[in-house]
Amino acid sequence: VKSSSKIFDVRRVLVGDRREIARAISAIERQSPAARPLLTALYPHTGTAHIVGITGAPGTGKSTLVNQIACTYRQKLDVQVGILAIDPTSPFSGGALLGDRIRMCDLAGDPGVFIRSLATRGAVGGLSRSTAEAAQVLDAAGFDVVLIETVGAGQDEVEIAHTAHTTIVVEAPGLGDDIQAIKAGIVEIADIFVVNKADRAGAEATARALQFMLESGDRLARQAAIAAANGADKNTVRWQVPVCKTVALDGTGLDELVSQLDAHRAYLRSSGRLEAKERARAQANLVELLRQELFSRFLLSLETGELEDAVSDIASRQMSPYETLERLLNTPKTPETR
Amino acid sequence: VKSSSKIFDVRRVLVGDRREIARAISAIERQSPAARPLLTALYPHTGTAHIVGITGAPGTGKSTLVNQIACTYRQKLDVQVGILAIDPTSPFSGGALLGDRIRMCDLAGDPGVFIRSLATRGAVGGLSRSTAEAAQVLDAAGFDVVLIETVGAGQDEVEIAHTAHTTIVVEAPGLGDDIQAIKAGIVEIADIFVVNKADRAGAEATARALQFMLESGDRLARQAAIAAANGADKNTVRWQVPVCKTVALDGTGLDELVSQLDAHRAYLRSSGRLEAKERARAQANLVELLRQELFSRFLLSLETGELEDAVSDIASRQMSPYETLERLLNTPKTPETR
Repeated sequence: VKSSSKIFDVRRVLVGDRREIARAISAIERQSPAARPLLTALYPHTGTAHIVGITGAPGTGKSTLVNQIACTYRQKLDVQVGILAIDPTSPFSGGALLGDRIRMCDLAGDPGVFIRSLATRGAVGGLSRSTAEAAQVLDAAGFDVVLIETVGAGQDEVEIAHTAHTTIVVEAPGLGDDIQAIKAGIVEIADIFVVNKADRAGAEATARALQFMLESGDRLARQAAIAAANGADKNTVRWQVPVCKTVALDGTGLDELVSQLDAHRAYLRSSGRLEAKERARAQANLVELLRQELFSRFLLSLETGELEDAVSDIASRQMSPYETLERLLNTPKTPETR
Repeated sequence: VKSSSKIFDVRRVLVGDRREIARAISAIERQSPAARPLLTALYPHTGTAHIVGITGAPGTGKSTLVNQIACTYRQKLDVQVGILAIDPTSPFSGGALLGDRIRMCDLAGDPGVFIRSLATRGAVGGLSRSTAEAAQVLDAAGFDVVLIETVGAGQDEVEIAHTAHTTIVVEAPGLGDDIQAIKAGIVEIADIFVVNKADRAGAEATARALQFMLESGDRLARQAAIAAANGADKNTVRWQVPVCKTVALDGTGLDELVSQLDAHRAYLRSSGRLEAKERARAQANLVELLRQELFSRFLLSLETGELEDAVSDIASRQMSPYETLERLLNTPKTPETR
């Protein structure tokens, strides 16, 4: 493979050179144009990794769980594992999870593991774009499983989950009322549920509540509607979402969880759902690129100070946001434009 | 005021007609073009409400706190209060918080209170746009304070917080390790910290930890950098972020919290920061409208099936996302385009 970029060595990424992978992901993270030819050169080599999203509210112990999933894959199945940790509040903080992660797990120094925190610099949709692209790099570099950890409470997180083949939703007993509200929205994206901290009081009740939700007609109806919208055949074999109980701190239940991950991957392949997932992932990626590129090019087309003047007019209430929008886009002021 | 829309009665919104307000917000929520002339007609009447964002992780009790803030305003100061509850996982769930809210507070039936859950239908940035526009409706309709409740863990939430004049970040003792990671990113957006559930063990320690973070050079340096980037004068009077302790369930600390809210508003006015906040809000609103409108218009410009074909090429690895992007945008395939 010939390098198509002066800056990045495609071959070194493809053979799993850690330093080159890290450099590439850094370029992706700051959305440098230099990453584009690299990503294009790597793209034909993607498509073999199992992309797994792990999402759950703070306090569910999902970071520990991600570590244990990686450990289980490493110790028992000898697959290479990439971990992308998404820090949703990163516009300010940068990724600070790495230190914690290494301290609490024995993955440090393992050449078959690549761990990276991802931050966004504030652009809407920037995080899901960076995450998808970083996963492409790890995929092309030969990592068999890529674990993407998100907090799972915001729109961005839901979209990142959509870029995975398999989404694990982590719950834990006794986290308070608000959890219920989050659950309501996140149930539909779960391929596997985990009740972590399963040695605590209330774990059984949490697992039963999840099982009940899974069996309720409401969920099934909504899921069928989503499947139909995605073009799924009515006769497609259904995936029965399992509820796994784990104690991530001591590794209880991890073998079963990893078996379920592999089972879901096999299901995606045998049912033909993998193709639909790949299409959904491609679409999400393309739409985000289009949105960002259209906006970037539009900004470049403006006169110096034009955007600032428009903001001033809105802030001072001289012109409404929609009037300003029409003025900037230089079209007739009809609100019927869709 | 003459109605500028066949569908919405601007005058009725301006005099606070609840049914018309609800209809308008529903149109905003589904991003109906019919809402645009209404928003434009209402816009000159906005700018008087105090927009307050309340953000915090699940389990901090912030829904209860929002209720109590509203009750405190209603009982002691006789101001009209609007509440917008953001359900971040709403692409599937729709807003389900309303029932809970009414059950646990005595705001139900109060004509001086308007409560609404907001959902997004899956568009990136859609939630922050809907939230900003719903707040405009309540502002124009004469609500003196608009409380916007978010989970505060995702990029969307951070942006919604940026559309507020005053942002309250709610913490609670003993919520586990992940909280620390969230805190790290959300500290900088806090104008007021609240340690809720202050009657619980560990509340003092949480409050001290927050106070320590506030006083650390790191935060002050970052805050100064942000202020400078926003064009703030170095000699501007600084706002000392207070750490309030509350027990939302019994109302402890609420008077002090509401005093701090009013003090922050007074500070914004006297320091000249209000103008900068208004500009930041206007810019966030305009940028999101531009992003959505540019993408909508681009989609309309495509041939039937063009986007689907592009997605197929990416999913089958025949073409990379960036090559497809360039093809769709019909420009030379140079990666140097910014």
